[in-house]
Amino acid sequence: MTQPPFRFQLAARSGGARAGRFETPHGAFDTPAFMPVGTHGAVKALTPEQVRATGAQIVLSNTYHLHLRPGEGLVQKMGGLHAFMRWDGPILTDSGGFQVFSLPRVEIDDRGARFTNEVSGEVVDLTPERSMEIQNALGADIIMAFDECTPYPATEAMARDGVRRTLLWIDRCLKAHDRPGEQALFPIVQGGVHLELRRSCAEALVALDAPGYAIGGVSVGEGHELMCQVTEHTAPLLPEDRPRYLMGVGTPEDLLAAIGFGIDMFDCVIPTRYARSATVFTSRGRLRLTNRRYRRDAYPIDRSCDCAACAGGFSRAYLHHLFAANEVLSAVLCSIHNVHFYQALVRDARRAVVDGRYDDFRREFLALYGRDGTGTGTRAGAGTGAAARKRKP
Amino acid sequence: MTQPPFRFQLAARSGGARAGRFETPHGAFDTPAFMPVGTHGAVKALTPEQVRATGAQIVLSNTYHLHLRPGEGLVQKMGGLHAFMRWDGPILTDSGGFQVFSLPRVEIDDRGARFTNEVSGEVVDLTPERSMEIQNALGADIIMAFDECTPYPATEAMARDGVRRTLLWIDRCLKAHDRPGEQALFPIVQGGVHLELRRSCAEALVALDAPGYAIGGVSVGEGHELMCQVTEHTAPLLPEDRPRYLMGVGTPEDLLAAIGFGIDMFDCVIPTRYARSATVFTSRGRLRLTNRRYRRDAYPIDRSCDCAACAGGFSRAYLHHLFAANEVLSAVLCSIHNVHFYQALVRDARRAVVDGRYDDFRREFLALYGRDGTGTGTRAGAGTGAAARKRKP
Repeated sequence: MTQPPFRFQLAARSGGARAGRFETPHGAFDTPAFMPVGTHGAVKALTPEQVRATGAQIVLSNTYHLHLRPGEGLVQKMGGLHAFMRWDGPILTDSGGFQVFSLPRVEIDDRGARFTNEVSGEVVDLTPERSMEIQNALGADIIMAFDECTPYPATEAMARDGVRRTLLWIDRCLKAHDRPGEQALFPIVQGGVHLELRRSCAEALVALDAPGYAIGGVSVGEGHELMCQVTEHTAPLLPEDRPRYLMGVGTPEDLLAAIGFGIDMFDCVIPTRYARSATVFTSRGRLRLTNRRYRRDAYPIDRSCDCAACAGGFSRAYLHHLFAANEVLSAVLCSIHNVHFYQALVRDARRAVVDGRYDDFRREFLALYGRDGTGTGTRAGAGTGAAARKRKP
Repeated sequence: MTQPPFRFQLAARSGGARAGRFETPHGAFDTPAFMPVGTHGAVKALTPEQVRATGAQIVLSNTYHLHLRPGEGLVQKMGGLHAFMRWDGPILTDSGGFQVFSLPRVEIDDRGARFTNEVSGEVVDLTPERSMEIQNALGADIIMAFDECTPYPATEAMARDGVRRTLLWIDRCLKAHDRPGEQALFPIVQGGVHLELRRSCAEALVALDAPGYAIGGVSVGEGHELMCQVTEHTAPLLPEDRPRYLMGVGTPEDLLAAIGFGIDMFDCVIPTRYARSATVFTSRGRLRLTNRRYRRDAYPIDRSCDCAACAGGFSRAYLHHLFAANEVLSAVLCSIHNVHFYQALVRDARRAVVDGRYDDFRREFLALYGRDGTGTGTRAGAGTGAAARKRKP
């Protein structure tokens, strides 16, 4: 059983999909949950109030970036990450491993990783113990195990060694974690696309009786199909009564597939990153607002959306203009919209689970979302054929 | 007398300073008023809601920039500038002349100005008639005469010719202005630093019985002293019962001096531009948040400020970090603060006028504002001497 302050309660199931609620010292969040990414302790371009208004209940921040700048010591001195970034709800920090392992010059062995701090020029050791120390200082409600993320593609031997290290390091993480009563440590299942490795890794981690579990090593280039295969296989290996977090995923289609496999938590830079490059999500697919067709389009991004940008009456034409004029407000308004879109997606998914009709919901959503990329019936968007259906930003 | 929908009512006087209220078709604004600048139809980095929350009641936008992109035809098609930028309060547009006359390759004669559109590459004629046509299409509540802004320094002959053209062009502006019942056209007094020219220009313009008047050709490099001299001389030449707008001014010290000379309206890019380069205003002077001294400073920008950034508890250390990490939120929060600072300044000035103690208010403000540049008694800021008093950003 989960115990306060980290209590996970399942409210409903629909097929493999779950609706739940996870309690943390900074409040609870509903699942499925999407966590906007606040890499440097700020969701890009948004105030915490704007983030909250999208419906987000928990945000993610990056240990690697905060360690380099401003440093966890400073954040701790300022009262911890919640006080520093003025987000009083739940926060999750990653371990820093994912970023470090993708650095061009990094030495990795069983002890940990050694790299050069790009800000200060110093050589830094990031080990399971150090990652815990940093995350304990930052003070997020959920902290992540320091693991070895197997890249894609990778040989089975590489993936096997990643699992070996991940299991070696989770013991050291658990031993080093100083604030288990305030911060829930989630182990991470690795194993690449090798399902037997995923199974053995999951089984070893489940034995640790952690307050929640993550599936890592996805969203690293393997594509939607392999991600689905790994998730469908791995999610059921994790305890029913603990939240399951699929790291770094993904597109709306990815989320809906993963929710169907029993995933409860997600994070991804897509909504905020796409927003800054003018790609916005609508119930009928993605739009790229810098496209000339939106120059005279008086409709909001999505007429069925009640985010501050759409309900506020900002037209596609205005946003097109702001992007052309290089005005930061374009990123602000589109980030509000995209994060709101993701929050509405998981909220609607949750409602469908509660109503026992998740598969129908998913099918209906995808039928509309995939139909065209032109938004809700604008003149500018009508009858434009193939170009409108192009889905990559 | 002024007539609806453009009614100016003086509520109080204190020495030369005035407290009033100007009614427009999109609501009234109190004077002295500071107009944040929304060059491309957006106050940089801020949503209209955030602008409104600073206390701003009227914003300015630039005819030149909106003409080039997205074009006044598009703005008009979208319902006019208020609808386009989602600002339902009063708006003022300039004539475009100021920007055009500062272009590197521009031909100017009595007909108007001819230049190359930097966006489309087309040759554009900007004349009094064209400026009115554009501003009529944009639909601001207050529109500005197309004038010739005398640069600084300039010979008296140049300034005299500027006045001649300004008077020649105001007649053409008045004739071309198509919506006098909906848009108040303000003539602009020119004459450089030549007080007799200022007098003759003002007298000629006052005879036109316009709903409001501007003093232009200031804030062009002449400095605080000459700006004061020109303003002190020119403001009393304008009708008591019409608002007086000092264009492009200025620093808090400039505003307080000009209010003392009877000025009612201001616009300036300083609060938003400085915010983006980390310079913020406090009751005790300016701070540059990228300075290392603020790295560990737990105080908000100004403890006596109730803007969303200060009252929201964002520390100087957090803002320092956001600037270092190149996060757009730094510009958002500092713009909110700086625009709020300017709004509080004119609001407090107005209150002092109503209380009949404007000179005392100004003296007290400047005594505190000039005392040090370190903000309100932080440890980091204490005892830093000359560097703290440095006032240029």
